[in-house]
Amino acid sequence: MKVKLKNVFVIYFLVSVIGLMYALLQLGQPCDCSQHLRSASDLMHGKDKKISQLLSEVKRLQARGKGPELEGQALPIIYAITPTYARLVQKAELVRISQTFLHVKNFHWIVVEDSPVKTQLVSELLAQSGLRFTHLHTETSKEHKRKESDPNWLKPRGVEQRNLALQWLRENRELSEEGVVYFADDDNTYSLRLFDEIRSTKRVSVWPVGLVGGLRFERPLVEKGRVVGFYTAWKPNRPFPMDMAGFAIALQLLLANREARFDLLAERGYLESSLLQSLVSIEELEPRADNCTKVLVWHTRSEKPKMKQEELLQKQGLGSDPSIEV
Amino acid sequence: MKVKLKNVFVIYFLVSVIGLMYALLQLGQPCDCSQHLRSASDLMHGKDKKISQLLSEVKRLQARGKGPELEGQALPIIYAITPTYARLVQKAELVRISQTFLHVKNFHWIVVEDSPVKTQLVSELLAQSGLRFTHLHTETSKEHKRKESDPNWLKPRGVEQRNLALQWLRENRELSEEGVVYFADDDNTYSLRLFDEIRSTKRVSVWPVGLVGGLRFERPLVEKGRVVGFYTAWKPNRPFPMDMAGFAIALQLLLANREARFDLLAERGYLESSLLQSLVSIEELEPRADNCTKVLVWHTRSEKPKMKQEELLQKQGLGSDPSIEV
Repeated sequence: MKVKLKNVFVIYFLVSVIGLMYALLQLGQPCDCSQHLRSASDLMHGKDKKISQLLSEVKRLQARGKGPELEGQALPIIYAITPTYARLVQKAELVRISQTFLHVKNFHWIVVEDSPVKTQLVSELLAQSGLRFTHLHTETSKEHKRKESDPNWLKPRGVEQRNLALQWLRENRELSEEGVVYFADDDNTYSLRLFDEIRSTKRVSVWPVGLVGGLRFERPLVEKGRVVGFYTAWKPNRPFPMDMAGFAIALQLLLANREARFDLLAERGYLESSLLQSLVSIEELEPRADNCTKVLVWHTRSEKPKMKQEELLQKQGLGSDPSIEV
Repeated sequence: MKVKLKNVFVIYFLVSVIGLMYALLQLGQPCDCSQHLRSASDLMHGKDKKISQLLSEVKRLQARGKGPELEGQALPIIYAITPTYARLVQKAELVRISQTFLHVKNFHWIVVEDSPVKTQLVSELLAQSGLRFTHLHTETSKEHKRKESDPNWLKPRGVEQRNLALQWLRENRELSEEGVVYFADDDNTYSLRLFDEIRSTKRVSVWPVGLVGGLRFERPLVEKGRVVGFYTAWKPNRPFPMDMAGFAIALQLLLANREARFDLLAERGYLESSLLQSLVSIEELEPRADNCTKVLVWHTRSEKPKMKQEELLQKQGLGSDPSIEV
């Protein structure tokens, strides 16, 4: 018994000495968390990087949206009326303005072809554009049609097409609907900011147009928030010496004045005036684009592509594959 | 002596029991870093929350951007290299292509001005574009500069600018990075579909270009998925009879071939070949756009605006306000 007890004590003694030593070691060095903390810090560093990446992505995405998106649904619709006609650069021009319009909220594109039918090219382009659109067509009557060989100022293009679009709006929109109508030719260049400026049109809003009339820009002259004249060199005595791209009209004003339209017989340069005269006076014009001091639309014109090689090859029966749309 | 020994044993017994218990507790739970980790975990939880908030914000913003944005992060970046120079239509051209590019996911615009400085016009346009961009400049050396009166085919434009962009990529991007490089001049017209086609370029991808070379389009001819020739009328014997807008190059291929660049002295029409020859063979070209049967980019050219009235007025000291940017 005595021997047994001694053995028990010896074993107990050894175990407890080890336990005590371990306990003392732990007490001197209470807890080494560095490994845990290192991996935690790595993780956090990674997360910080991710956050900074995401923040810059959010910034970038917000910038490209431009403007208070959430109000989107409440905004008046902008109706852009674009007359167009078949030519080599037609598809290219329509593609690039459609990509501009795709950024504009509450937008409705009215495309009117100068054609006896709706062409496949324009129909498919519109269907694939991602835009809300209305596709119309009317062929310019022979007496008013400009020939290929005519200089581009001889007869204005797109008059009957724009009038058809006005008619469509009058037949398909209610006087109670808020909206803005803009005549957006397919060859101009539009800054996205222009559409923010247009949106709030009460009657007729106006702004500068770049690269037009033989000038760097034409523009309404504004004093104390009112239009008092126009900076223009060509026929400055026209009632509204402005380019088509330089004004927008409230939908309600057009619906309330059902007879207002472009005059097919208007003298050269008087087309814009022929519509505006029956809608508004100069004093009523609403200046936009920082009191008409910013150019947000440019009267760009595409060169007619040279087809010398194509013509040569066609004579040899080797012209480009007509089934490939350009 | 016996009593003393007993007391020692009792004290020792108590101390060692405590030690043993402590040791056993420690063994089950080797190190309690919970306090340190708790605060780290709180921090991380906060960061996770932030990340998840930002991710949903990115998602929301991307959703309004239209298209399958969510894969965005995994897509190779498209680097579009655009040389540009001051002229009346410069801003208009840059505005409209920037609006096209704004629709393209994982896109990085490298704009290189032919100018001794970065101009204010381009700097501000880029800053407001909403695009990821790099702004560079280098002035074309006098001997290579085209004069206003020179025909546009006499000397190629933008050669030194494109080479500078290649140099920037080589200095700022890693061989491990997936990307695609495209030379996107500021006057062309780009369909959004083009960028989907470009994205998967392994070495050099090719496709038709509209309205170029005196033809409706030029295009690579494809048989059984391989490029076997080119439909082109002008200098068909060039090694790569293609327009700059008709191909894209894998970033890795450009980084691995550090000497590949455009030859400033290349004969007229041989500029594209001077770069491509050192990168790829015709058999390796990857046809895009439905085996090169679709036109997704057009070699559009803007007319030089007439400034007749502006010049007349300037002579009288009545030119347009130079502080208004066009």
